[in-house]
This record gives sequence, structure tokens and C-alpha cells, in this order.
Amino acid sequence: MPKNIKKIGVLTSGGDSPGMNAAIRSVVRACAYHNIECAGIYRGFEGLIDGDFKLMDARSVKGIINKGGTILKTARSKEFRTKEGRQKAFNNLVKAEIEGLVVVGGDGSFTGAMVLNKEFDFPVVGIPGTIDNDIFGTTHTLGFDTALNTVVDAIDKIRDTASSHNRLFFIEVMGRDVGHIALNAGIAGGAEEILIPEEDLGLDRLVDSLNKSRKSGKTSSIVIVAEGDKIGKNIFELKDYVDENMEGYDVRVSVLGHMQRGGAPSCFDRVLASRMGVKAVESLLEGKSNYMVGLLGGKMELTHLDKAIKGKTKINLELLRVSDIMST
Amino acid sequence: MPKNIKKIGVLTSGGDSPGMNAAIRSVVRACAYHNIECAGIYRGFEGLIDGDFKLMDARSVKGIINKGGTILKTARSKEFRTKEGRQKAFNNLVKAEIEGLVVVGGDGSFTGAMVLNKEFDFPVVGIPGTIDNDIFGTTHTLGFDTALNTVVDAIDKIRDTASSHNRLFFIEVMGRDVGHIALNAGIAGGAEEILIPEEDLGLDRLVDSLNKSRKSGKTSSIVIVAEGDKIGKNIFELKDYVDENMEGYDVRVSVLGHMQRGGAPSCFDRVLASRMGVKAVESLLEGKSNYMVGLLGGKMELTHLDKAIKGKTKINLELLRVSDIMST
Amino acid sequence: MPKNIKKIGVLTSGGDSPGMNAAIRSVVRACAYHNIECAGIYRGFEGLIDGDFKLMDARSVKGIINKGGTILKTARSKEFRTKEGRQKAFNNLVKAEIEGLVVVGGDGSFTGAMVLNKEFDFPVVGIPGTIDNDIFGTTHTLGFDTALNTVVDAIDKIRDTASSHNRLFFIEVMGRDVGHIALNAGIAGGAEEILIPEEDLGLDRLVDSLNKSRKSGKTSSIVIVAEGDKIGKNIFELKDYVDENMEGYDVRVSVLGHMQRGGAPSCFDRVLASRMGVKAVESLLEGKSNYMVGLLGGKMELTHLDKAIKGKTKINLELLRVSDIMST
Amino acid sequence: MPKNIKKIGVLTSGGDSPGMNAAIRSVVRACAYHNIECAGIYRGFEGLIDGDFKLMDARSVKGIINKGGTILKTARSKEFRTKEGRQKAFNNLVKAEIEGLVVVGGDGSFTGAMVLNKEFDFPVVGIPGTIDNDIFGTTHTLGFDTALNTVVDAIDKIRDTASSHNRLFFIEVMGRDVGHIALNAGIAGGAEEILIPEEDLGLDRLVDSLNKSRKSGKTSSIVIVAEGDKIGKNIFELKDYVDENMEGYDVRVSVLGHMQRGGAPSCFDRVLASRMGVKAVESLLEGKSNYMVGLLGGKMELTHLDKAIKGKTKINLELLRVSDIMST
Repeated sequence: MPKNIKKIGVLTSGGDSPGMNAAIRSVVRACAYHNIECAGIYRGFEGLIDGDFKLMDARSVKGIINKGGTILKTARSKEFRTKEGRQKAFNNLVKAEIEGLVVVGGDGSFTGAMVLNKEFDFPVVGIPGTIDNDIFGTTHTLGFDTALNTVVDAIDKIRDTASSHNRLFFIEVMGRDVGHIALNAGIAGGAEEILIPEEDLGLDRLVDSLNKSRKSGKTSSIVIVAEGDKIGKNIFELKDYVDENMEGYDVRVSVLGHMQRGGAPSCFDRVLASRMGVKAVESLLEGKSNYMVGLLGGKMELTHLDKAIKGKTKINLELLRVSDIMST
Repeated sequence: MPKNIKKIGVLTSGGDSPGMNAAIRSVVRACAYHNIECAGIYRGFEGLIDGDFKLMDARSVKGIINKGGTILKTARSKEFRTKEGRQKAFNNLVKAEIEGLVVVGGDGSFTGAMVLNKEFDFPVVGIPGTIDNDIFGTTHTLGFDTALNTVVDAIDKIRDTASSHNRLFFIEVMGRDVGHIALNAGIAGGAEEILIPEEDLGLDRLVDSLNKSRKSGKTSSIVIVAEGDKIGKNIFELKDYVDENMEGYDVRVSVLGHMQRGGAPSCFDRVLASRMGVKAVESLLEGKSNYMVGLLGGKMELTHLDKAIKGKTKINLELLRVSDIMST
Repeated sequence: MPKNIKKIGVLTSGGDSPGMNAAIRSVVRACAYHNIECAGIYRGFEGLIDGDFKLMDARSVKGIINKGGTILKTARSKEFRTKEGRQKAFNNLVKAEIEGLVVVGGDGSFTGAMVLNKEFDFPVVGIPGTIDNDIFGTTHTLGFDTALNTVVDAIDKIRDTASSHNRLFFIEVMGRDVGHIALNAGIAGGAEEILIPEEDLGLDRLVDSLNKSRKSGKTSSIVIVAEGDKIGKNIFELKDYVDENMEGYDVRVSVLGHMQRGGAPSCFDRVLASRMGVKAVESLLEGKSNYMVGLLGGKMELTHLDKAIKGKTKINLELLRVSDIMST
Repeated sequence: MPKNIKKIGVLTSGGDSPGMNAAIRSVVRACAYHNIECAGIYRGFEGLIDGDFKLMDARSVKGIINKGGTILKTARSKEFRTKEGRQKAFNNLVKAEIEGLVVVGGDGSFTGAMVLNKEFDFPVVGIPGTIDNDIFGTTHTLGFDTALNTVVDAIDKIRDTASSHNRLFFIEVMGRDVGHIALNAGIAGGAEEILIPEEDLGLDRLVDSLNKSRKSGKTSSIVIVAEGDKIGKNIFELKDYVDENMEGYDVRVSVLGHMQRGGAPSCFDRVLASRMGVKAVESLLEGKSNYMVGLLGGKMELTHLDKAIKGKTKINLELLRVSDIMST
């Protein structure tokens, strides 16, 4: 039988992503709706250890649904990796009479939540907040859609100058382990080639492909490169290689960097955050623990945190093929 | 056995939506990839009747993936509703050696495509292009995601002034028969109430709800109203009713109008358009006809045009509930 | 000799405009820089009467430079029009030890400030905050530049659908007494005609001009109409007249409304607000009163409030001519 | 007495900037208005040498006012630096019966125009198109305002993540010789420090200032660095220095790069481009040559090309002071 939870805590952890504030708002309002208290915990697991908590009522989260970043701040906590740190965190939770915890973050944050749950049998539910879309158990992580629009907007701008100058641009986007941002934004930005961690195209094929593009009448080109591309060279080395092995193009590099994490969340991410916050709170109230809420088949579904972390998200092969056809 | 198609035509019809250009580009490039010809047909079925065609190669669609509207233009054709009009259209297709047609549009456009198919056994495939998301057989129509972001951006701006003045705003968004735009943008825009065609809230409950909001400490409020709201009053009458029956609020109205149809498509809509264009062309090449391509479970799937038109898309009841909880 | 002011108050009044928050931030930080106190006054002159004040230090205004609206809220105060109301306001200022007042607003707000100054010899300085650019003594009011970009972005979107459908759009923009928004946004949006309060084009010439446009090969057109257009008809009557007296166009209307007031301020408005806030505070510290700070010849200059209110801003005739040439 | 010019050429040269297309449109339409012909010249002086011209009528420039980049493309021409190259260019102009040339670009492009004028007495007028705002004789170059908004938008996004993580960001913006972009965008983005080519702050004062910021309660900071900053270290070396000499901050770097050159021009830049194009054409028609059109005191004014190139634009010292006060 579900425990009768009267107070829930919420924290954001790891890299921030657009929509985290909307998720906080949703958790807070869902608590208010169910007449239970909600405590915001600052700076992720750091704040848990420091007891940096604040009671939040429905009005305290007004005006944040459209704000990037996280009002609760986020951090990576070394101390939480020690048994002592986690003991402090648990003691603080008990002292504050918090009986369930919603953790918004990526796989590192979920690992922290799982350990807390394992060691102290403390109820936890995760909300996948990361722009990388690399969490199993949800078709979309919070912030992925917004980041895609940010990246595509930047590519559009760079294309203006690329096509005015007949230039070739290498644009680096986020994604150390997965190429979801590169692949989607590459198709949407009309990239000629997309280099992702999942696939080693090889330098020769890249140059071949760019040469083919030129011959087909293209006077400028854009190549999207995921941070974690497996071609074995960083983006500046790529530029040098192409400079040396291809004629006719003026080659430039642009690293989009941290702006990809910020900005007002898209409609999609705001709705997703609102749904996930409600589902997370109600799952805790139903006595569930150790789950992540996710979007599957358009519905809110639960996946074991363990599976969410270890499971792999795969590149959609159809998208790779579409990208290929579009660069005809 | 599939007919060996050597030339495909593409047209946009009905109300325009962001992503139509990306879909045209995809159809043209998919044809080029498969070494078949592609003819762009201007002004929808009007241009079909007038024989207003233009051969399009892969380079002819460069630089349009990020443009709103449709370079092929669109129209509503009365003449195509007559047998004579359709005969002319068919004759033009035969004369131009076009052997398959991709129709980008909404249910009216699909009806036209079906009649053409029925009367002349002409191969047709539909791509759902409308901001309303009211087509069965796809979780997302082309342009829906972009329109949502446009609406939410406008709501954000109006909220700035609403909360500076402690005002109540009624904002009308598109959606004559379905409330998808209102419901999603309402949640994302933090609306207090959302009035949709699928649900008659009633004026009294609206005023009750707004009064409750005030008492909970809200000093400004936003109510999203779908064009086709069933409350039986237009948005200006709504304002008058609330003006008379509620104190303390300065009530204003904003009708977002046609800007909802324009603008650069979002990343989501560009990727969707690219996928749909490829699927439409390849379906015709595989000998399929009378289908619409759609996004179901994250994959490209075919639905009979007949079913796509007659099927109903339903409001997600979970979203209604989330909206309710969020306005706590 | 300048009075040794130790505390300044700041309020926003009248219609809100983008950049008001940036101006508040600047006033607060300029006070901190000069080691004097700053009190934020809520809801304009209403809050002055109610004594609704709050001490603000440099950190209290962080994160607001890019927010639309005004965190101090704004209102129109009837009570301040009475002698009793103003006496209360003055008493509150004295009680709070406020020795100078910065008023951010339009001509109505400046009139209030002047009366306060006249009756109680209270030092006041104005910052012109209104999107209409209708204040004498500054080439740009705060919010004008942002509103122009908002309007032009909306026109761009509407043009997408206008040119896809070969439509004629009448778009109403703000500006009851002056046509600055209409004229600038009309040129930037590529409008065929621009109807402003300063010039009565006449209905016949409008129809003539639109007919000429059609003959020159234009298939869609946009007419920008300022709210206060002097042609003597509202925008819906205009539409009806053109519908009856012109063939070939499908005529539509869009009223942009209150979204023109909101949104993140442009770089220009943020810099302008920052400069104006500093100048306003330092003018008070120098013992000046009854002035408005403005941008003239690229520099911060003072103009008597009296002159700022009564002076007229004139339409730039060169722009009218450029608009004419551009619609060739 | 002015020569009776019957045909004008227009080209864009050097680095592209937002508003170049709006300027081309204006030149073309101003020619049409005055019933003279207009030839677009591709790829700047390269196309002049190659005779790569195209007649442009009023309709040929529709739909480009809101597009970034330049439809005429741009290039840097080595051949034009030779007497032979320029002779070819002149011969092509004569052959095409072009009797006056509008050059849109920066100081390098103006130098080319001046040499052409000097050697062949060919009438030339310049339009200052560069995002750097480093041309004498105009308060604003074409594209400067748009680039500022692009930069500020990126800073806003980066601040979201900076303040969520309590980070210090170094953001590099364009501006090799002048700090106009850095200074304006820095103020508008709420930067703590702004490093510009005109002023050597010194590393120690930078660290002092950042330490002061921390003590004043700031938990995150942004430092804007112009490319040509004179502190003598590149942005990555700056980061390393601060990493070593300051505690408590997690320091990151973001180089905004070429996206600063692209994007839809702001309202300001579109209006400016429209005015400049008309003025350039009419100046040529009045027999003037060797001038640049510019915005001075809000009016279109002419400056000798010679002076425009050699004159220096100076940093507004008031802005430096405002920046200082704002980071209180």
C-alpha cells in the first residue's frame, strides 16, 4: 500500500537544459494540487548535503515556465559520491520531513538517485533533463527539442554567410556519446554531411562526398560534427585535412558551444515538462519508486532507473538515410 | 507489380503551413535520388487545371528548407470540384507525362486527390500539411509544431504586459474544429483556462475559475480560446461577459490571426517534412496509391486517405488534466 | 548648490514597454554606484499613494535586463489626479526619506511628475518609456526599437501566407497619434502602402495604388495601418471597401495588438535604458529637476518635462518618400 | 552638370552583413522608380572582372528584404588589385553600358571603388555594409544593429547556463580593430567586464574586478572579449590565466563566430538599407561620385570615400562608464 507522502523534494542536477524550470513548476504545482508540501533543493545533490532547502508554494513558481536554466541551480557533487555525503543528505531529508524526491537530470543524476534509494530505501523518481536525448525509456529528453531549434537557428545564420561566400563550414554541436542533435539539426539545417559518434564515415569518404556536392552544382556546404564524432580528429584538424585535400572551398569552423543549453524552452519542452512533473509527483504518491518518467508512444510511462541508465538510445537509421537523400 | 514511374508531380493545396517548402524540397530531392523527374505544380489543383507546371531538379529547391509558406503557392479550386475541371487536370498530367502525384495539404486537399484517383486511377499520395493537427493517421501534421512555438512566443509577450498591468487577457488561436493548438499552447503559455471546441466549459465555470485564480493570489490571467470554441460566444462577447460579471480585472482581447501560419519551420517540422517527402515518393515508386504518409510511433507509416479524412483526432485527455493541475 | 540626495525612488507608469526593467536596473545600480539608497515603487503613482515601496540593492535587479514588462508593475492612477491623492503620495515620499524620483513612462506619467514637482517642489526626472516614440526631446523612446522588431517579425510571418495565397493583408499596428511604428515597420516589412495618422491618403488613392501594384506584377500585398489612421474608417471597414472596389484579391485583416508591447528588449533598448538610468540618477544628484533624459545626436541630453510633453515629434518625410520608392 | 545616367550597377563586396540584400533591393527599386536600368554584379569585384552581370527589375528583388547574406554573393578579389584586372572590370562596365556603380561593403571595398574611380573616372558611391561599425561618416553601418541582437541573444542563452552552474564565461565576439560590438552587446548582455581593442585593461585588473564581483554577491559572471582585444592573450589563454589565478569559478569559453554575420536583418537595418540605397542611386543621378552614404544625426549624408576609409570611429566613452556602473 502506498505510503501517505506529505512532502516531496525536487532538485535539478548535472548539465542544465531548457525545460528544467517548467519541470520544477510542474512538480510544485502538482504537489499543491494534491495538498502536499514541496521543498526546492538548491544545487542538486550539493544542496541536499548542505540542507539548502526552501518551501515552494504554487505562486513561487510563477513566471518561470519560459525561462532557460534552473532557478534551483545545478551542480556536480563529489561529496555525494561518498557514503558520508549521502548519509548527510539522507539526514537532511529526514529532518525536513521530505518523504520522496524528484530528481531532474541525466544518467549521472539518476545514478545518484538510485544509490540514495538503495542505501536508505528513500523513494525517488527521475525526470530526464538533458539536451542530448541519450536516456533510454523516453523518446524525448527535456531540452532536446529546444536545443535542436537553437542549433538550427545558428546553422541558418551561418548558411547565410556560407552561401554568400561560397564557403564550406564545419559546425560542431553537442553530443559526446550520441549523435541525436547532430543528425536532426543536420537534416533540418540542410547539411551536406553529418558526422556522429555512432558512425565512422572516414575522412576519404567525407572528401569524396564534398567533391560530389561541388560537382552537382553546390557552391557552399555545411558539415555538422557531433562533439564525440568517431573520425578521430577534432573539428580543427578536420578543417586542416579538407583544406589540404580539397580545392576550391574556403573552409571555416564554428563551435556552437554552451548557447545550445540555454534559451526559452520550446512549446514541446514546456508541455513535456508539465506532463513529466505531474507524473513524477503522482508516481511517488502512488508509492512507486526508482522509476524515471518518460514519453513513450506519446504517453507518460515509467521505466526503471536502472534500465534508463544502462539502456542505449539508438540513432534512427531512417534519419541517416533521409539525410543522405536530402544531400542529393 | 509496381508501375515503373518516371515522373512525379508535387503540389501544395489549401491553407499553407510551415514546412510545406521543406516537403517540396524533399519530394524533389527524393526524385533526383531515384533518378526520376519531378514537376512542381503551381497553385494546387488550380495549377493542375491550368497546366502550370515546372520541372524541378535538386538544385532548384536549395535555400527553401527554412522558408515559411510555399514556393509552389496554394489555392482553393472551385473548378476542380467539377468533372470538367478534373478532366482537364488529368489531361494535363498525361500530357506532361506525370505518373504519380504528391499532394501536400489538409483534408480538403486529400478529398481532391482521392477523387482524381478514383475517376482516373491516377496514383496519389498525401502529405498532411496543416497547422491544425486534425488529420487522422499522424501524431503530427506538418506545421503544427512551428505554429505552437509561434503562438507560445506571442503568449509570452502578452504575458509581459498582462502581468505588468494586472490584466486578464483572452487570446484567440487557430483551430475551428479541434483544440490541439489551444491546449498545447495554453499549457506551454501558462494559461489559467483553455477553451476548446471539444469541451463546453460554460461561462459560469469560467468566471468561477477566474475568481478562484484571483483568490489564490494571481494578479493577472490568460485564457486561451480556440476559434471554434463551443461556448457559443465569440471572443469579444466573452470579454464583455467577464467584464460585467467579474470585478477587479482589466480585460483585454488579442486575436493572433494569420501570423500563426507563417515563419521559418521548427527543426521538428523540417525533419518531419524531409521524412514525409521521401516516404511519399518511395511509396509511389513501390506502386502504392491513395495513402497518406504519417508519423505514428515515431515511424513513417501509411494510412488510407479515406481513413485519414474521416478519422477523428482526439484531444489528449491527459493534457486537459495537466492543464488543470498547472493552473493550481 | 545641489542638494545632497541620499535616497531615490523609481517607478514605472502608463503603458508598459520593453526596456523598462533595464531602466529600473540601471537606476538601482547607478544609485548603488553612488552609494545612495534606491526604493522601488510599485504600480506607478498608485503605489506612491499606497506607500508600496521596497528597498532595492544592486543584486535585487539581477536577471531582469532581458525581461519584458516591468517588475515594479504599472498602473493608471485616478486618485493621483486629485490633490488629496498627491498629498498622500508626497507624505509617503517624505516618510520614506526619498529625496528624488525617477519616473519611467509616457506623457501622462510625465504630467503627473510635473504636478508633483510643482505642488511640493519635489525633484523629479523622467525616462521616456513607450513604444510609440511620441515624446519630444529624444530620437528614440524606450521600447520603440523592440516593438519595431516584433511588428516586423509578425509582418514577415504574415507575408509568408500572403504570398502563398496571393492575398492582400491589412495589418493594424499600434500608434494612435503618431505613425512612427507603422512607417518604419512598413518599410522594413516591405508594405505596399502605409496608412498613418499624419497623412490622409484617401480611399481612392489607396485603391489606385493597390491596382497599380497588381499591374506591376505583384501577386500579394501588405498594407500597414496605424491604429489612429485618419482615413476615417477602422481596419475592418477598410477591408470591406477594398473587397467591394477591387477585384482579384482575397482580402484579410490582422490586428497585431498587445504582443507589440512585450518581449525581451533589443540590444538597442537595453543600452538606451542603461544610459538613461545613469543619466537620470546623476541629474538628480546634480540638483536638476523637472527634466526628461533623452537621446539626441547620439548623446544623453536633458529636455524640460514641459517641452517633452507639449513638443511634437514629426514623421520623417524622407521615410515617407523611401516607402513610396520601395513599393515601386 | 550631372551626366544623364541610364544604367547603374550594384555589387556587394568583402565580408557579408545582414541588410545587404535590403540594400540591393533598394538600389534596384530606386533605379526602377527613376526609370533607369540596374545591373546586379555577382561576387563583388570578381564578377566585375568576369562580366558576371544580370539585369534586375523591381520584381526581381521581391522577398529578399528579410534575408541575411547577399543574393549577389561577395568575394575578395586578388585580380582587382592588379591594373590588368581593373582594366577588364572597366571594359566590362563600358560594354554593359553601366554608367555608375554602387558598392556595398567595408573599407577594403571602398578602396577598390576609389581606385576604379581614380583610374577611369568612373562614378562610384559606397554603402557601408559591415557588422563592425568601423566606418567613419555614419553612426551605424549596415548589419551592426542586427549583429548586436544576435550576439545579445547568444549571451542571454549562455547566461542561463552560467547562472545555473555558478560559472564564469569568456565570450568572444567579432571586432578585430574596434570594440563597438563588444561594448554594446556587453552592456546589453549584462557583462561584468568587456575587453576591447581600444583599451588594455590588464590581466590583474580583470582578476581584481572579477574578485570584486564575487564578493558583491555575484555567483556567475560573463566577460565579453572582442577578437582584437589588446590584452595580448587569446581567449583560451585568458581562461587559463583566470583558472590559475582565481578560485571558486568554473571557467568556460565560447567563441560566437560566423553566426554573428547572418540572420534576418533587424527593422533598423532594413530601414537603413532602404534609405541608403535610395540616397546612393540619387547621388549618382545628381552627378556625385566618390562618396559614401551614411547616417549622421538621423539623416542621410555624404562623406568622401577617402575620409570614410581613413577616418577613425571612436568608442563612446560614456558607454564605457555606463558599463562600469552597471557591473556594480
